[in-house]
Amino acid sequence: MADVKQAKVVLDEAEMPTHWYNIVADLPTPPAPPLHPGTQQPLTPDDLAPLFPMGLIEQEASTERWIEIPAEVHDIYRLWRPSPFYRARRLEAALGTTARIYYKYEGASPVGSHKTNSAIAQAYYNKIAGRTRLTTETGAGQWGSALAFASQIFGLSCEIWQVRSSYEGKPYRHVLMETFGAKVHSSPSGLTEAGRALREQFPDTTGSLGMAISEAVEAAAKDPDASYSLGSVLNHVALHQTVIGQEALKQLELFGEEKADFLFACAGGGSNLSGIAFPFLRENLDGRANTRIIACEPTAAPSLTQGEFRYDFGDTAHLTPLLKMYSLGPDFVPAAVHAGGLRYHGMAPLVSHCYHEGLMEAIAIKQREAFEAGVVFSRAEGIVPASESNHAIAGAIRQARAATEAGESPVIVIGVSGSGQLDLPAYAEYLSGNMADS
Amino acid sequence: MADVKQAKVVLDEAEMPTHWYNIVADLPTPPAPPLHPGTQQPLTPDDLAPLFPMGLIEQEASTERWIEIPAEVHDIYRLWRPSPFYRARRLEAALGTTARIYYKYEGASPVGSHKTNSAIAQAYYNKIAGRTRLTTETGAGQWGSALAFASQIFGLSCEIWQVRSSYEGKPYRHVLMETFGAKVHSSPSGLTEAGRALREQFPDTTGSLGMAISEAVEAAAKDPDASYSLGSVLNHVALHQTVIGQEALKQLELFGEEKADFLFACAGGGSNLSGIAFPFLRENLDGRANTRIIACEPTAAPSLTQGEFRYDFGDTAHLTPLLKMYSLGPDFVPAAVHAGGLRYHGMAPLVSHCYHEGLMEAIAIKQREAFEAGVVFSRAEGIVPASESNHAIAGAIRQARAATEAGESPVIVIGVSGSGQLDLPAYAEYLSGNMADS
Repeated sequence: MADVKQAKVVLDEAEMPTHWYNIVADLPTPPAPPLHPGTQQPLTPDDLAPLFPMGLIEQEASTERWIEIPAEVHDIYRLWRPSPFYRARRLEAALGTTARIYYKYEGASPVGSHKTNSAIAQAYYNKIAGRTRLTTETGAGQWGSALAFASQIFGLSCEIWQVRSSYEGKPYRHVLMETFGAKVHSSPSGLTEAGRALREQFPDTTGSLGMAISEAVEAAAKDPDASYSLGSVLNHVALHQTVIGQEALKQLELFGEEKADFLFACAGGGSNLSGIAFPFLRENLDGRANTRIIACEPTAAPSLTQGEFRYDFGDTAHLTPLLKMYSLGPDFVPAAVHAGGLRYHGMAPLVSHCYHEGLMEAIAIKQREAFEAGVVFSRAEGIVPASESNHAIAGAIRQARAATEAGESPVIVIGVSGSGQLDLPAYAEYLSGNMADS
Repeated sequence: MADVKQAKVVLDEAEMPTHWYNIVADLPTPPAPPLHPGTQQPLTPDDLAPLFPMGLIEQEASTERWIEIPAEVHDIYRLWRPSPFYRARRLEAALGTTARIYYKYEGASPVGSHKTNSAIAQAYYNKIAGRTRLTTETGAGQWGSALAFASQIFGLSCEIWQVRSSYEGKPYRHVLMETFGAKVHSSPSGLTEAGRALREQFPDTTGSLGMAISEAVEAAAKDPDASYSLGSVLNHVALHQTVIGQEALKQLELFGEEKADFLFACAGGGSNLSGIAFPFLRENLDGRANTRIIACEPTAAPSLTQGEFRYDFGDTAHLTPLLKMYSLGPDFVPAAVHAGGLRYHGMAPLVSHCYHEGLMEAIAIKQREAFEAGVVFSRAEGIVPASESNHAIAGAIRQARAATEAGESPVIVIGVSGSGQLDLPAYAEYLSGNMADS
């Protein structure tokens, strides 16, 4: 077997990160705080208390570098973590590239994406705060199914508003949430004031994450036993996801690589990007590396590449705090592209801040280029990536081709945020040649 | 983190099995050979040469105990092997059982099941024999997608006949095969003589594996560049799957368990059961253990528990050799249960032989009990199992409950053959209360 080369590194459970990494502690300049929409003053913990448990509110505002992962959360992470990290040798061969390509794969989690990393943590902090019910929004359904699973684990009830285009176009996802015991509604629904108003105003809307957030926030605000859970955007969500990048750094080293030259990750609300990128960014800030970190967003929702950096609402009905972020405006409804998880008008304030400070780059990718990359990747590596992840793969393939032309051999790392097994209708559309190139 | 207990064992790539294990070498009595359907004489290698490459024909008849896994195959196994092995602590808690439950999970493979273990090997031996095209049948689609992926890896074209009830009821699966580059037909199709005859005779048939095999065999027999590939039943398929049980034995030991008391695995054609069970059976035959090995079949296709042990055809059109096996007869068409991978009229000759010799037991499980078990498992462990795998889980849950009543703490191992992410419509049917209890 001497000619067989290592395909992947799967760390032992004992090597799982014990702490979440908080990038705020290492940023050269502090990010702008969220503002109360009425007073325009920085939010206080009390402002957030009706929606979130104190454990998460503290994390939202924390400037501590390392926050210990509670044993109960760590224990559940072990069901699927550490996640595998691969050298994409067959993809390299298929591309004929001189680049060395690696990928971190989050699709082996219970629901097939990175979202469980934060869902388990959020359900845990709600449980110990005595909340009994969680409400949330979901786009493609990855976050919703993660929170449904996490709620089941901690004995909480879970109610989910799913963006209409995804609810209808990806029916398997809401069955997955229901299998985990959650209630799921197509959004905008007739169950909330916000939903009813949106249905009246836009009867034919495909829905948006901004709308679904309004509905879930309203439902939680009206029930003192309920919390709202957000699957992206906020600081505490980015924090929980940093287990990804911490593991990836260690695994890259075990492949004998000193550092990555490029890191590609898809970006919708920013949770996946933050999770893999912030630990790599720390290496840059500490002078140990100079990895170019490249956010890959869909051309259909190009918040970083086309949006404005300003205070804006996180939702359509203006129920959330004001966040300083790159935004296309809360009324922006993206084309109904298959990467439902990336159809968000804004971008996590921490990601927005890093991008604004020049610590990250961003590119926008059209849907057909993304799926072309996904098919090449599937056929080479055997993993069918999520529609969202295809954007990162497409970005990496562009870079690999450029490197080949230049005769260079950079180390390229891709964050593959999830599995595309439930996105197969989108692949069918791409293979048939009928996919719109939004 | 002192109170956190180990959830799983993921072996390092270096600890992957280097050889397949051939149970024939250790059987107390030799299994009956396959017969030529015309002469009724034992088959010769030449009889099989039009359908299979010599590498596989040799394995089919081999009595060697260990057969080395070629480096090219081992290299691809590394994409997903070694597969994880879990202590099902949350399932134990949900059941309140005194039993210790473990499971070996094959659902993290490229196509979500154990089938890739043999597909890669079969594609490899065909490739080195100069064949350029593979034909096969598939039920639920797990075998078909595995062979589609394997064909893609080795640059072979791949054409698949999928049982009609699964083709129509599980549309994501044929998209997966197409994503990997294969051509897929609903069987019975109008493309073969066998298919046309079956469509005329049974216009409303839901199809069966026996019918789809006839079509794929006919297509291969007519093309000198093509081979037929079978995803189960034959000795060489069982052989390739033994990487599962070899890993599981090692992993069980790493959990500090000396031996398993019970092993449950679902059984349709027998490939999954053979793969996990034969290495455990070797421990029994060598006197190192006395594990009770229990095949879990669907009540809808109860070949072991209701069939007759006799020479019979593997397919409906009587194109295959005669195999000595437990059979319901090649014209048997099972109810259209969701576990499409178990809808086979016969059973692997090696499994049949072991069962007949008293080396294994068998039980039949109805579909609702299987899905009830699948939902309990999903909510506890986060993994939604394949419809087929649910039968093994249901069997294990029966045993765990019996152990609890008896105040005993046996070690129960479950072979979870695949992921149910593409079976979610079946879960929806179960959750709605409308599932037929076939």
